[in-house]
Amino acid sequence: MNYFEPLTRFVDLTNGTIPGAHVVQRRYLEDLRGLFADTAAEAALLDENPLLYEVHEAAVIPKEDGHLLFSTTVVRPGTVGEEYFMTKGHYHARADRSELYYCLAGEGLLLMQTPEGRVDAQPMRAGAACYVPPYWGHRSINTGNEDLVFLAVYPADAGYDYGTIAEGGFAQIVVAGAEGPRLVPNPRYLGSGARD
Amino acid sequence: MNYFEPLTRFVDLTNGTIPGAHVVQRRYLEDLRGLFADTAAEAALLDENPLLYEVHEAAVIPKEDGHLLFSTTVVRPGTVGEEYFMTKGHYHARADRSELYYCLAGEGLLLMQTPEGRVDAQPMRAGAACYVPPYWGHRSINTGNEDLVFLAVYPADAGYDYGTIAEGGFAQIVVAGAEGPRLVPNPRYLGSGARD
Repeated sequence: MNYFEPLTRFVDLTNGTIPGAHVVQRRYLEDLRGLFADTAAEAALLDENPLLYEVHEAAVIPKEDGHLLFSTTVVRPGTVGEEYFMTKGHYHARADRSELYYCLAGEGLLLMQTPEGRVDAQPMRAGAACYVPPYWGHRSINTGNEDLVFLAVYPADAGYDYGTIAEGGFAQIVVAGAEGPRLVPNPRYLGSGARD
Repeated sequence: MNYFEPLTRFVDLTNGTIPGAHVVQRRYLEDLRGLFADTAAEAALLDENPLLYEVHEAAVIPKEDGHLLFSTTVVRPGTVGEEYFMTKGHYHARADRSELYYCLAGEGLLLMQTPEGRVDAQPMRAGAACYVPPYWGHRSINTGNEDLVFLAVYPADAGYDYGTIAEGGFAQIVVAGAEGPRLVPNPRYLGSGARD
């Protein structure tokens, strides 16, 4: 029998990167155009087009049932208007697949949502292991002043459904308030049926 | 639809425990009786019966396809004769299930083995993400002077097969040498067919 070989990747604990990562995805504001609630602030910041986050995919592993994929994500600190920098967010293409986030540094929220628009937010800080159960869309949000860094582990056959979030959004957004981050309704939320 | 609810557990970064863990398994030398190569040293140490490791199972999550389980393991430093303290080691009952170890503290080796007895060892230290592919039995070994602490993430339907290791052992063991840990053949290895 041909066995897939064991491997190790070392996370650089000074910055959350994975030296030797086979893919590094960098997402700039332009890549998230239309996802922030304050359209004027988003438009104004597009000239600068800041880097919002990067994903370091650890290794080439078969995208098959039984395998796991893992990566680190580094979300930069900052806001678009009052809304914190965040990841695009996605459901899994195989919606019954879950994910585990282990936070390495920074402060943030793991925003989750059912297809019906019920929202949950879990706290992220070093040592937090946040469980994204099957069927929940998920997005990470940097509510602090430093990089938010986490390790993600998920079934290799989970896949990505970015379209539902890109077109319908999350029902709530996270904005900076006088007393810290708070969740408010998303004025651009269209629901998971936005594509229908 | 009834969705399983998101949850977060906070790893205590001072000692690797998970406050609020729903199960803490403690394994003493007696629980690993017969697994160490130096039978005289093992017998002599059984009076003291030291704690070898503890596993903090994070949360009650359905043991079903699509879900993930996660836990921390703390392996104490020490030796039985020249052989380092280690976990029992197991295959998955669903042998095609993999596992991801993320090391939080300490120094060690993740020893793996195919059912045919081919051995692999991956280095564990803070920041190391070690991938246990499907079909590989796995055991963690503390080769340092401090606790070896790691987070484990694995498919919730993986299950455990401890019997194959308990009865056949690993083909190699890790012993303390003048120049550090080294792998040597296990004199008690009987192979994965030991139960047949």
